[in-house]
Amino acid sequence: MAKRVMTLDELDLPVGKKTRLSRLLYRYGPRNGRLMVLPIDQGLEHGPRDFFVNPESLNPEFQLRLALEGEFSAIAFQIGLAEKYLRLFAGKVPLILKLNGKTEIPPDDEAFSPCHASVADAVRLGADAVGYTCYVGSPRQDDDFIQFGNVRREAERAGMPVIMWAYPRGRFIEQKGGRDSFYAVDYAARLAQELGADVVKVNYPKVDEEKRAQYPKEYRELKLSKREMLEQIVASAGRTLTLMSGGSKRSDEALFDDVRVALEAGVTGFIFGRNMWQRRFRDALDVAGTITNMIQDVSPSVAKKAALV
Amino acid sequence: MAKRVMTLDELDLPVGKKTRLSRLLYRYGPRNGRLMVLPIDQGLEHGPRDFFVNPESLNPEFQLRLALEGEFSAIAFQIGLAEKYLRLFAGKVPLILKLNGKTEIPPDDEAFSPCHASVADAVRLGADAVGYTCYVGSPRQDDDFIQFGNVRREAERAGMPVIMWAYPRGRFIEQKGGRDSFYAVDYAARLAQELGADVVKVNYPKVDEEKRAQYPKEYRELKLSKREMLEQIVASAGRTLTLMSGGSKRSDEALFDDVRVALEAGVTGFIFGRNMWQRRFRDALDVAGTITNMIQDVSPSVAKKAALV
Amino acid sequence: MAKRVMTLDELDLPVGKKTRLSRLLYRYGPRNGRLMVLPIDQGLEHGPRDFFVNPESLNPEFQLRLALEGEFSAIAFQIGLAEKYLRLFAGKVPLILKLNGKTEIPPDDEAFSPCHASVADAVRLGADAVGYTCYVGSPRQDDDFIQFGNVRREAERAGMPVIMWAYPRGRFIEQKGGRDSFYAVDYAARLAQELGADVVKVNYPKVDEEKRAQYPKEYRELKLSKREMLEQIVASAGRTLTLMSGGSKRSDEALFDDVRVALEAGVTGFIFGRNMWQRRFRDALDVAGTITNMIQDVSPSVAKKAALV
Amino acid sequence: MAKRVMTLDELDLPVGKKTRLSRLLYRYGPRNGRLMVLPIDQGLEHGPRDFFVNPESLNPEFQLRLALEGEFSAIAFQIGLAEKYLRLFAGKVPLILKLNGKTEIPPDDEAFSPCHASVADAVRLGADAVGYTCYVGSPRQDDDFIQFGNVRREAERAGMPVIMWAYPRGRFIEQKGGRDSFYAVDYAARLAQELGADVVKVNYPKVDEEKRAQYPKEYRELKLSKREMLEQIVASAGRTLTLMSGGSKRSDEALFDDVRVALEAGVTGFIFGRNMWQRRFRDALDVAGTITNMIQDVSPSVAKKAALV
Amino acid sequence: MAKRVMTLDELDLPVGKKTRLSRLLYRYGPRNGRLMVLPIDQGLEHGPRDFFVNPESLNPEFQLRLALEGEFSAIAFQIGLAEKYLRLFAGKVPLILKLNGKTEIPPDDEAFSPCHASVADAVRLGADAVGYTCYVGSPRQDDDFIQFGNVRREAERAGMPVIMWAYPRGRFIEQKGGRDSFYAVDYAARLAQELGADVVKVNYPKVDEEKRAQYPKEYRELKLSKREMLEQIVASAGRTLTLMSGGSKRSDEALFDDVRVALEAGVTGFIFGRNMWQRRFRDALDVAGTITNMIQDVSPSVAKKAALV
Repeated sequence: MAKRVMTLDELDLPVGKKTRLSRLLYRYGPRNGRLMVLPIDQGLEHGPRDFFVNPESLNPEFQLRLALEGEFSAIAFQIGLAEKYLRLFAGKVPLILKLNGKTEIPPDDEAFSPCHASVADAVRLGADAVGYTCYVGSPRQDDDFIQFGNVRREAERAGMPVIMWAYPRGRFIEQKGGRDSFYAVDYAARLAQELGADVVKVNYPKVDEEKRAQYPKEYRELKLSKREMLEQIVASAGRTLTLMSGGSKRSDEALFDDVRVALEAGVTGFIFGRNMWQRRFRDALDVAGTITNMIQDVSPSVAKKAALV
Repeated sequence: MAKRVMTLDELDLPVGKKTRLSRLLYRYGPRNGRLMVLPIDQGLEHGPRDFFVNPESLNPEFQLRLALEGEFSAIAFQIGLAEKYLRLFAGKVPLILKLNGKTEIPPDDEAFSPCHASVADAVRLGADAVGYTCYVGSPRQDDDFIQFGNVRREAERAGMPVIMWAYPRGRFIEQKGGRDSFYAVDYAARLAQELGADVVKVNYPKVDEEKRAQYPKEYRELKLSKREMLEQIVASAGRTLTLMSGGSKRSDEALFDDVRVALEAGVTGFIFGRNMWQRRFRDALDVAGTITNMIQDVSPSVAKKAALV
Repeated sequence: MAKRVMTLDELDLPVGKKTRLSRLLYRYGPRNGRLMVLPIDQGLEHGPRDFFVNPESLNPEFQLRLALEGEFSAIAFQIGLAEKYLRLFAGKVPLILKLNGKTEIPPDDEAFSPCHASVADAVRLGADAVGYTCYVGSPRQDDDFIQFGNVRREAERAGMPVIMWAYPRGRFIEQKGGRDSFYAVDYAARLAQELGADVVKVNYPKVDEEKRAQYPKEYRELKLSKREMLEQIVASAGRTLTLMSGGSKRSDEALFDDVRVALEAGVTGFIFGRNMWQRRFRDALDVAGTITNMIQDVSPSVAKKAALV
Repeated sequence: MAKRVMTLDELDLPVGKKTRLSRLLYRYGPRNGRLMVLPIDQGLEHGPRDFFVNPESLNPEFQLRLALEGEFSAIAFQIGLAEKYLRLFAGKVPLILKLNGKTEIPPDDEAFSPCHASVADAVRLGADAVGYTCYVGSPRQDDDFIQFGNVRREAERAGMPVIMWAYPRGRFIEQKGGRDSFYAVDYAARLAQELGADVVKVNYPKVDEEKRAQYPKEYRELKLSKREMLEQIVASAGRTLTLMSGGSKRSDEALFDDVRVALEAGVTGFIFGRNMWQRRFRDALDVAGTITNMIQDVSPSVAKKAALV
Repeated sequence: MAKRVMTLDELDLPVGKKTRLSRLLYRYGPRNGRLMVLPIDQGLEHGPRDFFVNPESLNPEFQLRLALEGEFSAIAFQIGLAEKYLRLFAGKVPLILKLNGKTEIPPDDEAFSPCHASVADAVRLGADAVGYTCYVGSPRQDDDFIQFGNVRREAERAGMPVIMWAYPRGRFIEQKGGRDSFYAVDYAARLAQELGADVVKVNYPKVDEEKRAQYPKEYRELKLSKREMLEQIVASAGRTLTLMSGGSKRSDEALFDDVRVALEAGVTGFIFGRNMWQRRFRDALDVAGTITNMIQDVSPSVAKKAALV
């Protein structure tokens, strides 16, 4: 069964979800069916320390201006920032309301991200999608699945697209090769599709030769290139659109290479936070512009691998 | 009290459940009151590794086409796949919506499968049954029973048949001879009937001589053939129809022998996943055809043992 | 304050409860204000092994026919059996719907019996009472009390009598002399009345001289006959009617002696399962007939101790 | 700020609460703004052993007759006794419905008293107040506070006074000088007022010199008389009326002395159980009469310290 | 991006929240857009021992009179005190109803503050804001976030401002430098804004050189003055107004210095309890007056740093 190019019309989406996703894919950002999202929930997840390297970024207006001038598809906010900073940018920068979160203070052994906001909050704020962090394989996956099911159903009723931050986490995945293994990320992509996410955000997989013996046997002998791994992950996510996460900041060269490979592998887009707003404003605009160009210049042969073109 | 042949009319089912079960038993699949179901929830339960041996099977359309062309009674999906892939096959391949699930990452010591979908989702998607995994004897049976009770009542109101995946699991059953012992599977069959499942999916029991001393005393001295064990299990399930699970893939010879014995023992059908879609498409069709023929060729003397004819 | 003979009219019961209890006490079974109930929830509580000694008993129709021909006051079923087997016997054998249950697989250290059925189920099925297992003194008594309170209130609104299976259980009662001590059973009887059960099912107390030192001081020196213990238990239950449980099967002589003593002590009736249906049908009928005769032949002097005559 | 004499009119009570509390304070019992309550929930909290010393007390009619003839302000019952015994005494003996309770079988390390009855039950039964046990400082104070908040709000809507049994309990208070220390009881009195109880029931504080070093520093050097401690406790409870608990039975002399001191310290009343009904009926009436006289003979100078006169 | 002076009109507040906050900022207390709140929940959090040093303070009327005569912006009460003492002061002293709380008896390893009151209670009592304690970084942050989310949404619907007592607490923050580190307090300020609090109450940060090695690397080398730390905290809180907590009582000199520095750093106000009511009434009035003067004398250059002027 050959890979098929899906269009938004071919995805079996309810009208509300299609309307909102269509805005994100074709009216903002690269506007060619791909996404470039600016997330700013690190203030909750890591505390203000992430802003030290670029003090201006502490004020959420920095990210809003960056999203506006850098022509991002949307900004991802926790409820507090959305309520207090978005009004001036309403209609100009689409909102992805992140519904759950936690601090970094307790360890991740039994990671669980509690919902403190709701789909109804997202509707009230005019959001075009909600974000939900699922800690794949955590000892608390039971609470996570039940909570996600409630979010999914509420989103279903509201016609609100659901983006899952699918993060392998917890002491058991550490025993099976770690959170960033290809096994872990590949599983996360499939899980997002099985549970009904419309879009999934995953990290770049990493091979750690020292942990290879811990991988499940089907993954133990695999020797794939980064592009091959990403192609497989996109395939595992299936009709759930795939966004690549940025993680901690790295060099421009490494970043653009990651973007290039991911585009070749057929991802729908990127959700880069610290790699954007840990730069000075002008630098961040430049990087965002470069990535937008890379997204828009995708060659037809590569584009055919994309879920949406 | 001799075994009696029940008809669907004799089962005391509400009209909605009877309508839906009748479709599965007589309008799709073998069409003679027996079932052949194609499950595809392994992407959630085991991750994508189950698809490696047959890469085409990663795309759920593979299984949908197989269910359609192989004339299965129904396909069993998690909500995500049902929402994103079923539309083209709607009305052609009946849906069994699996309501709960989990990943394989945490160990099974305290197994619990949380519900992330609902009977209302199943109704909305036109499903003909819902699936629910109960981990029989798990330390968390309290959460499981309460959750199942909610599903059962919601299904009652919706006229939706309930199929219980009845899997002995958890550290305590391991201390009593293991999850696949005749004691464990027999108990699971009865439990499904006691809790009000309409159909139960069980694994083939296995005798492990090394664990025999751990069995409860009534089972310790038993020397039964596979067929005798299955007859007993079907009797323990009573008016809850019995489906045999396939488990991991095995040889054709072993598979057909398992089918033959189960049919002789009076089971209502089969729910084989990896034994089907881990084959190439043509091979899978052939195997499915052979099993369908075996089901339809059941001799009258054997048929009399079936719950439904 | 001398013991008083209560009549059903003197019990302060709402009209629905009185109607249903009146049917059980005067229209079925011994018909003289006493009860003889046939329970069949062992398939869930112990698994099918309890049926091995009398294979016919695996089919719930065995117990239904026994309840009908043996003129029992009612049969106690879990929801699954009630839904699938009762219709043919509806109106002939009253139903006590057991609302909670568990398997024997996990140990009883932290026993808790989760509700998977509801009073609404009982109403729908035309039941005349609901059954609820409370594990007296379990570490999880908090969940138990809250759950029971919900059942009691739902039953209050539905006019449905509540029968509590009051079973001392868990690691703490084991440290205080064990689940069958007079202290434990006496406490259970009182607890049922304090929490608002209409009927309580208790086990026969046993004295274990080796554990006497563990009893609370008030019980440590007590030297009571079985009849004296039962009289005290009936008094502790007060206006909550007392049923004696059968436990595992024993000899006819021992059984009839237990019945005789209990009747002399003023119990309202019996709920014997394995002592009935682990016998062949004819034998069971004979034993049931003998007990019915004993119940109906209660002398007036003994009858005066009964809660209801 | 001098102590002020409050009247019922000065307490800021909603009309329903004022109506009911007024009945308890001025229409039953001492009728002078003070309370004498007869509690009988020991059958649940301790089991029937508390009745052994006076076997007649096992029958709740004993306590009801005692409350009636001894002119108590009210009787405190769990739901089961209230439903089954109160009708004959309805309108003659006011009811305080105890909403939560537990057995003594598990240890008190993590004490929590689950609600099995509701304010709606109390309304239906014509109660004039509800009782709630809060285990002050227990590791499970979170469940306790949330549960109490629900009761308080339900009582608010129903105009039902709330009496808190404020009992320091659990392994942490044991590390800080024990449940009966002045620190513990004083804290309990204040907590009841902070959480919104209308009346609080506390135990007499005891000084245990061996544990003094464990007290918080502010209490470590205190050398107060019993009366001074009680005055402080009454002040900590503020506008929450204070009832003294009786605890286990003691000599008449000690009991009357406790009553005298408490009256001098300004308590609103007493809630003595075992000190009443562990006596023979006539003796109990005599003791109750003596205490009623002491309450009614309170000198004006003492009366001025009472919260209500 | 330079610091900007926000006005109340510029904060994107719903009309109900704006109305209530406007009253607190401009109609009571300093009346210049800053706040001075008198909290009195220590009776619950610490027990009556906090009142020993000034016995008159045990009676909540002491604090109410102090709030009235000292011209505080509002008083913060638990529900019990609000219901029983506020009426005489209604309309004269605005109420901040504290919704959750706990005792000091269990240790803070797994701190969680359960809600026993609700926003509906606050509405009924005419409150102008609700208070909520969030234990930042506690192992139980999941329960905390979910509970806070419910409060936030209820407050949203009621137009009720939410003040978060943001307290780093629990065994994990102790491993990262302690609850009072700049890292901890800075994180707390940001968390309050991320989760949607309208106002946040934080403690003064302290540097403990012995724990510096435990700080996250971004904070490890920082050498900031108290004012610089406070400026950063105010910035982390962003459009969530910042109140400084008083903590335990200290000298007048130290207190006024803390006030001065905080005003220079741009905080919105103070919430000092023990530093107020652990003084004699006249002394407390004097101190309150001095602080009010300091607040009102803020120089224009300093005022520009305030969130609201």
